[in-house]
Amino acid sequence: MQVSPPFPVFLPDIQPRNVPTALMEALQARFGPQFSSALVVREQHGRDESAFSVPPPDAVVFAQSTQDVSDAAKLAAQHKVPVIPFGVGSSLEGHLLAVQGGVSIDVSRMNQVLAIHAEDLTVTVQPGVTRSQLNAAIKSTGLFFPIDPGADATIGGMSATRASGTNAVRYGTMRENVLALEMVTASGEVIRTGTRAKKSSAGYDLTRLMVGSEGTLGILTEVTVKLYPLPESVMAATVSFNSLADAVNTTIQIIQLGVPIARCELLDANTIRMVNAHSKLTLREGAMLLMEFHGSPAGVKEQVETVQAIADEHGGQTFEWASSPEERTRLWTARHNAYFAGIQSRPGCKAITTDTCVPISHLADALLDSVLEAEQSGLTYFLVGHVGDGNFHMGYLIDPDQPQERELAETLNQQLVRRALKLGGTCTGEHGVGLHKMGFLVEETGAGAVAMMRAIKQALDPHNIMNPGNMFTL
Amino acid sequence: MQVSPPFPVFLPDIQPRNVPTALMEALQARFGPQFSSALVVREQHGRDESAFSVPPPDAVVFAQSTQDVSDAAKLAAQHKVPVIPFGVGSSLEGHLLAVQGGVSIDVSRMNQVLAIHAEDLTVTVQPGVTRSQLNAAIKSTGLFFPIDPGADATIGGMSATRASGTNAVRYGTMRENVLALEMVTASGEVIRTGTRAKKSSAGYDLTRLMVGSEGTLGILTEVTVKLYPLPESVMAATVSFNSLADAVNTTIQIIQLGVPIARCELLDANTIRMVNAHSKLTLREGAMLLMEFHGSPAGVKEQVETVQAIADEHGGQTFEWASSPEERTRLWTARHNAYFAGIQSRPGCKAITTDTCVPISHLADALLDSVLEAEQSGLTYFLVGHVGDGNFHMGYLIDPDQPQERELAETLNQQLVRRALKLGGTCTGEHGVGLHKMGFLVEETGAGAVAMMRAIKQALDPHNIMNPGNMFTL
Repeated sequence: MQVSPPFPVFLPDIQPRNVPTALMEALQARFGPQFSSALVVREQHGRDESAFSVPPPDAVVFAQSTQDVSDAAKLAAQHKVPVIPFGVGSSLEGHLLAVQGGVSIDVSRMNQVLAIHAEDLTVTVQPGVTRSQLNAAIKSTGLFFPIDPGADATIGGMSATRASGTNAVRYGTMRENVLALEMVTASGEVIRTGTRAKKSSAGYDLTRLMVGSEGTLGILTEVTVKLYPLPESVMAATVSFNSLADAVNTTIQIIQLGVPIARCELLDANTIRMVNAHSKLTLREGAMLLMEFHGSPAGVKEQVETVQAIADEHGGQTFEWASSPEERTRLWTARHNAYFAGIQSRPGCKAITTDTCVPISHLADALLDSVLEAEQSGLTYFLVGHVGDGNFHMGYLIDPDQPQERELAETLNQQLVRRALKLGGTCTGEHGVGLHKMGFLVEETGAGAVAMMRAIKQALDPHNIMNPGNMFTL
Repeated sequence: MQVSPPFPVFLPDIQPRNVPTALMEALQARFGPQFSSALVVREQHGRDESAFSVPPPDAVVFAQSTQDVSDAAKLAAQHKVPVIPFGVGSSLEGHLLAVQGGVSIDVSRMNQVLAIHAEDLTVTVQPGVTRSQLNAAIKSTGLFFPIDPGADATIGGMSATRASGTNAVRYGTMRENVLALEMVTASGEVIRTGTRAKKSSAGYDLTRLMVGSEGTLGILTEVTVKLYPLPESVMAATVSFNSLADAVNTTIQIIQLGVPIARCELLDANTIRMVNAHSKLTLREGAMLLMEFHGSPAGVKEQVETVQAIADEHGGQTFEWASSPEERTRLWTARHNAYFAGIQSRPGCKAITTDTCVPISHLADALLDSVLEAEQSGLTYFLVGHVGDGNFHMGYLIDPDQPQERELAETLNQQLVRRALKLGGTCTGEHGVGLHKMGFLVEETGAGAVAMMRAIKQALDPHNIMNPGNMFTL
């Protein structure tokens, strides 16, 4: 295995700032029982799904309204103390860790669905609404919100990380699906971006600047997203291949032919083994594609026929089809359990996850070599991919007490990301930069573009108190 | 007709800056025959399709490369002199007018298609490539670039104004279709934003910040956009209605049902009359919808059946259908000629155009009352709409020598835009802010959001030399 020197294993840049007693008292006075500095509460807001371990925030405010967020931000700004938004803590890249100390602003109680406009295919929610809660709330409208990153994340968190997931190949990501925002700025001011109109050329696209800004430019307090009519017909399928290359090349051809597939997910044989063990299944231990087709009955039939023909050409076998919701859920079990099956395949482990996305024609190059390197390293790993988008994840399972394992995982990750960048891809398809991808952000986009991002950050957050130490250091 | 006081007829804020002789000499020395200060050349670069008339730029540089743009920007920055990018001059809102003097940077000679990646459904072009040139260049790939704002605008200009047009209802706008950019900053530095990967969560979305920034943050020198497979089957249709309301309500129902219609355009009876006179046609003088359906033969058939049933319910008549390219072109004549038919219906006139977009359920409210006001005003007007998006334009035809006509047109425009804003819409769906919508931008998004835009502008262009006086005054 090649290791490209120099070898910078990432360590978070921990620079705790002292939180003045005056601020703690002011927050306590303003928020009463919505304020906590108890260690257990702080610790709960100081960890996520990443493998980083840093000291927890100094205090937590449980916001229940935009006014709460604004007041907390204003108080923090007076004392130049960091604020860090918190939803359900499902970040994979350390976004919500208090690397510079400060106050965690928990928006999970801001969980009202504010306005369902079925007639316009839009809905406005508070940031703490989760995607499953949103879909439950709109169930009677015949519409649905397609973005599904796996975790039952909040709409606020998904907006802040520009999340996507399984349905993005058909419906786009949060970038394409957030129409408008309300947010609290670094000074505590409340502003609105965008409207419910489907398109607009009115000024700078602040909505999309905020989507993916990872809490570093402001805190989202309302999100308006697009909805879609529930498809008349849905068909799900799984198909197994003799090689990973066959599964990947099937995917590439599906996309290049313009099939409007709604989901196109990959698990490798290794991950199928973990899923079989975890869920007591007997899936064929080969690379598997899991697909879903949305449309009219005739449209779905056409897609299915096209995809079946492509898969057949690549040796696809043990096709399974499902159209009822119950059957589809069963078919998707493997995919839904992959992450936890991976984690649980090695008790006590932590996962170092990767998240590259490449132009579809380079998917095989990017993916197959990275899997080969992982195999050769001896480290346990799992592989899941939103391959229809050219996006895939590997989880390297490390013993957190073995520094050399972390080092090995980071080396593999580094090789994988650099390969993706060389192929015209990105260092993160959907997880965000957080603490983990800061160096790669510069490699990907260049010092000039990162300097432009820093200039924007400094203009909008002059005291560097909005989730500082994430995305880049100032 | 109600006039809401106060009544601010917009006049561009003309603040010419002196262009130092030293800069003129330096540009002449660097660019030789690519530089011109001849009045006829300056005048050609000092007008667009808007009704504004301001003094032309002081000089024009014909850039042939990114290096040319960078060098011109660096020289201008040294002297703190404005630079204004110029494509083909098809702006409708005064974007390219030198309201503060300065140097027009004409990128129309930067017209190379740089990289066709048919295998990834992307293409990278220089900014001066026009949309028809792009589609000609990729013809053999079986792919097409759908964004069609009417004018044969440049891809650079379309990106800078976040343009869209007839196909946006299915394929999105430039916001959804630009993947990556190369640009020259206010200091003359060359940076890149985005990659060819379909999605990314890597840092601030500089690509979408630049798309729609109207030359005020930098000059685009390369644009990478998405392409789409040419649909297997295309069907176009026109249908006439007894009332505008029937046409609009048909549209609303098509969209609410989720029909993936590719084009859904409206002309009112008044505009049909102008088109008949201009193109010697005998179209029925009623509100007309022009539609296009893309997909597999079966998919198109389904869409057509659904839409026909909806139109029938609203009294649609004289359906005409076309599937061959020639027949489709004939059917679309009315739409393609509407703008010029409108202009030519009143010799010597100028058009004050509007461009609002509202949530689809409010389209009837927004459109019908605005048409009524125009009718009652006695001013000649035409109406065309990308109504599938909730977006429509009216062109008020004024005698430029009659100030009261301009005032009347601006009053109508003001009423129309304010109505759209009240209905949750935007002051510009696709034309941009330019000189004309600055006041409305504040009304739409609020002082706080515009202050945030200004802060970004000041951070990235501290000397205010990138197309200053457009979008907002600093």
